[in-house]
Amino acid sequence: MPEIRQNIVTRDWVIIATERAKRPEEFVKRRQVKKELPEYRNDCPFCPGNEDKTPSEIYRIEQDKQWQIRVFPNKFAALNNDGTAERKREGIKRVVSGFGVHEIVVETPKHNLTPALLKKDQIKNIIKTYKERYNAIYNDKRIKLVTIFKNHGESAGTSLEHPHSQIIGTPITPSDIRYRIEEAMRYYDDAGECVFCRALREELQDGERIILENKNFAAFIPYAALSAFHTWIFPKNHSSCFGLISVEEIEDLAEIFKGVLCKLYYGLGNPDYNYVIRSFSKLGPSLEYYHWYISIIPRLSKMAGFELGSGMFINTSLPEESAKFLRDTKCPV
Amino acid sequence: MPEIRQNIVTRDWVIIATERAKRPEEFVKRRQVKKELPEYRNDCPFCPGNEDKTPSEIYRIEQDKQWQIRVFPNKFAALNNDGTAERKREGIKRVVSGFGVHEIVVETPKHNLTPALLKKDQIKNIIKTYKERYNAIYNDKRIKLVTIFKNHGESAGTSLEHPHSQIIGTPITPSDIRYRIEEAMRYYDDAGECVFCRALREELQDGERIILENKNFAAFIPYAALSAFHTWIFPKNHSSCFGLISVEEIEDLAEIFKGVLCKLYYGLGNPDYNYVIRSFSKLGPSLEYYHWYISIIPRLSKMAGFELGSGMFINTSLPEESAKFLRDTKCPV
Repeated sequence: MPEIRQNIVTRDWVIIATERAKRPEEFVKRRQVKKELPEYRNDCPFCPGNEDKTPSEIYRIEQDKQWQIRVFPNKFAALNNDGTAERKREGIKRVVSGFGVHEIVVETPKHNLTPALLKKDQIKNIIKTYKERYNAIYNDKRIKLVTIFKNHGESAGTSLEHPHSQIIGTPITPSDIRYRIEEAMRYYDDAGECVFCRALREELQDGERIILENKNFAAFIPYAALSAFHTWIFPKNHSSCFGLISVEEIEDLAEIFKGVLCKLYYGLGNPDYNYVIRSFSKLGPSLEYYHWYISIIPRLSKMAGFELGSGMFINTSLPEESAKFLRDTKCPV
Repeated sequence: MPEIRQNIVTRDWVIIATERAKRPEEFVKRRQVKKELPEYRNDCPFCPGNEDKTPSEIYRIEQDKQWQIRVFPNKFAALNNDGTAERKREGIKRVVSGFGVHEIVVETPKHNLTPALLKKDQIKNIIKTYKERYNAIYNDKRIKLVTIFKNHGESAGTSLEHPHSQIIGTPITPSDIRYRIEEAMRYYDDAGECVFCRALREELQDGERIILENKNFAAFIPYAALSAFHTWIFPKNHSSCFGLISVEEIEDLAEIFKGVLCKLYYGLGNPDYNYVIRSFSKLGPSLEYYHWYISIIPRLSKMAGFELGSGMFINTSLPEESAKFLRDTKCPV
């Protein structure tokens, strides 16, 4: 009998299709063989030596006179960072002029690396960069939401091979975000505690969906994961704002983040994935009812008409089995 | 300057990326050449002669002793149609046993046809079948939502070539649906009219995003279309329930539906697409604040990290230009 599970945090429902569920190994076979990439490409605007091919640098982390991380505006930005966020309403036409911020974070000088294969110190550099830019962009009063995300691989929407992530700051708060905030607030009002803290506590007690944990973070496949190997990384200490992450927490997050990406890489054969940091600072830096986290979504299945039409998902894997598979996946040190 | 537009009906926000927008013709070039299919395949369970390879038939439309449409349960159903929809709550585990209905609608006996190339009478047969099954499934008190949808082409999630659509009845109402209903209700309370009626009226007045219209239906690319060529078909007479569609309306819907699918087929070169009928009968058959409609989503771009993380979309086409392109697309009679 299939199960329809509800995620207590997002209120999303998912059909866990037990009768047509695949074993974790079956998700490996679906990958395509990836081509070998060179360490450097002359024609890649993100490779060292081609710094003049990108818009002016906003931020960098250097080591031994070589940049390790670079941040600059997206040359093909979806939004324009001069001007104002002017709102107009005329009948059904509700529009904001497309003011906003769209930045690129180049994650390593090496063209052929992938976050799973970076050293832990470089993952720390990436997290530090995210924190720096996150706080800087939220400082602009016109920005209402900062989304930090990565598209890894073609089916996750990447157009450039060189490892990079993106940061978009928009002058509006989308309704999806507002609904989540309202639901978290309602849970807090009803139950007297943060729904994320509760979910994490029970996931840790249950244990069977945990992938990795250390002092400050835990990675798990949620009870009602929407798709195969959909993974959440939660800070253990309640905090509503990623921008407040401490030095000690960055250390621990880097360990868990690298650990999960490595397990996906070696366990599933470098699948395409997206990740996103979910944190909403405009609510105030530290709220009792909201909890920031990272969501990693391997792109092992497609959203089809049912998902688009109902907002429900069909997951053809068992979260408990997938978590065990990743727990048992060994990575070379 | 890009524009951030809000859809008054769904409240979704979309970045219309004017600065990196493509011309309509550029979406054609992205298509892959499709392979030629035979009219009949011995190994296709949906082809005539192989009726014994499907679960027992629920419904059919015949002409000259040959079936034109067949409906039967999905052999690999996501949900199980015996048993009860039992709800359990234990800590964070909220689960409903996977009772539900999952049916296949074979749209034509011919393996190599596609809805765009079917005769109008056959499109009418498909709509009649949807109506019949929609009402029958909603009659089951355990079912809360019926989703009628089609996945056309690989990137839209099809696994079988033979033209077919699917109907899923779930024992729960997803929160996405609930939010939409609440927003429509709130608009109705504030403005005193159905938000869909208002949007349709203004789209018809504006005219520039209209693709086709006749007495009872209009097809248009909404002002804040989430993705390229995303098309809506609205009934002109207010009705909250697809199951109440009249014989005359079926005639008119078939004309518009075929017209739009043809224009997509010839204009864009048979793109992959999903369509879904959005109608919620559990609210009562005829509500003043809700309006059923059909949403057609050509899969010309990918959802990436930004969309997954923020619930906002980036549309690299201009709705006005896309609608003009489809209006101007001529189809062979």
